[in-house]
Amino acid sequence: MANGPADLSGVKALIFDVFGTVVDWRGSIIHYGAEVQAEWGVSADWPLFADAWRAAYRPGMDRVRSGDLPWTNLDDLHRTSLNRLAPAFGLDALDEAQMNELNRVWHRLEPWPDSVQGVVRLARRYTVATLSNGHVALLSGMAKRAGLRWDVVLSAELFRHYKPDRAVYTGAAALLGHSPGEVMMVAAHADDLEAARGAGLKTAYVHRPLEHGAGRASHVPLDAGFDLYAADFEELASKLGTPPTGD
Amino acid sequence: MANGPADLSGVKALIFDVFGTVVDWRGSIIHYGAEVQAEWGVSADWPLFADAWRAAYRPGMDRVRSGDLPWTNLDDLHRTSLNRLAPAFGLDALDEAQMNELNRVWHRLEPWPDSVQGVVRLARRYTVATLSNGHVALLSGMAKRAGLRWDVVLSAELFRHYKPDRAVYTGAAALLGHSPGEVMMVAAHADDLEAARGAGLKTAYVHRPLEHGAGRASHVPLDAGFDLYAADFEELASKLGTPPTGD
Repeated sequence: MANGPADLSGVKALIFDVFGTVVDWRGSIIHYGAEVQAEWGVSADWPLFADAWRAAYRPGMDRVRSGDLPWTNLDDLHRTSLNRLAPAFGLDALDEAQMNELNRVWHRLEPWPDSVQGVVRLARRYTVATLSNGHVALLSGMAKRAGLRWDVVLSAELFRHYKPDRAVYTGAAALLGHSPGEVMMVAAHADDLEAARGAGLKTAYVHRPLEHGAGRASHVPLDAGFDLYAADFEELASKLGTPPTGD
Repeated sequence: MANGPADLSGVKALIFDVFGTVVDWRGSIIHYGAEVQAEWGVSADWPLFADAWRAAYRPGMDRVRSGDLPWTNLDDLHRTSLNRLAPAFGLDALDEAQMNELNRVWHRLEPWPDSVQGVVRLARRYTVATLSNGHVALLSGMAKRAGLRWDVVLSAELFRHYKPDRAVYTGAAALLGHSPGEVMMVAAHADDLEAARGAGLKTAYVHRPLEHGAGRASHVPLDAGFDLYAADFEELASKLGTPPTGD
């Protein structure tokens, strides 16, 4: 993909959006839904359910961002929307323990094929950290299960603000001991990158055409002028001058 | 060493004190001092300097804990005490940039010989995290340089309280998504473990007889009744039932 002429030589740390950028939330929920269906005897339109559950994500966080709700982590926001969606998807037959287990699918999302190795490669040159709206327990559990090796797990939870609030981006840079301009946000979503840029961070857009399912790829925001565009984490590493792995 | 009869089967995460427990602050400062002496032409009694600098650590934090100082990270506390100690140790010949570089030796402390592999081994069964009074930037820089692979970097900085304030221990358990009793504090210092126990955590004492130099080993606090005592991280892993590494 095209690459801007930005000077990225001062970048010390990369911070990664997670849902959609590092892991395939939709495919993971569909896959887990098939397991739930086989084990618990409920059936649902899992792709539609995944989309509906994810669609409830932003409105839930916006209630926290506006002050309508006190700080509420994603487990609790996901559970509230799951309760609301369950009847329409035939999931109200699940008991409380099953609902809790289904809700924890967000701790078990699978990485995109290039994510694990790409993070390893980037970590040779940069500090690599998450910067997700997922809470620390969710992110660390997911990383451990998936083999994602972050140097630091940073979360909106640490700042009690959800992205795209500015405090999340500036707070992340400060915790890493860097100025905003020494930190690059990596995301598959233009709004996240625009907010990061507004806070003074560098920006890398990674295209994840399968995030919303085959044939539903979003337009690459080339006109947004992010510092770097990449097709995956391997291309990101190459564009950042990180040598390929020897193993 | 002797082992208490505590039931540790519910432990999910281990959180580690860092200075003295994971890394050899005194040996590292002495070693770095020899480099400083060779490069910058100042000479000092580095063992005595290391002891004096470390001795200023607790009083500095206590000024924050008492509210006498607003939140101040360890770089700033270390720098304040370095400024105060410099004349007595002949270090006032250093310029500002050199003083800053010397101050950052705390980001570069070397692990004890068993630390890196011990953490790898323990991570196979447990979530492994720091819980240090060092700030996130210090801890993550040290870990990256030393090859220490933490699942999560937790710091007093995240809670704006220094250990042994209770909020640090309960806050760490909460961020990891566990109850205090599911988390074990690992430290070479009885006061840290006593505070962790007071907050409901499990406790493991690891003896580091060289922390204060050869011949200055502290007494093993067997009578304190911590849940577990170990001579190093390998013995800790064995006592926690974590299989030896195959590599």
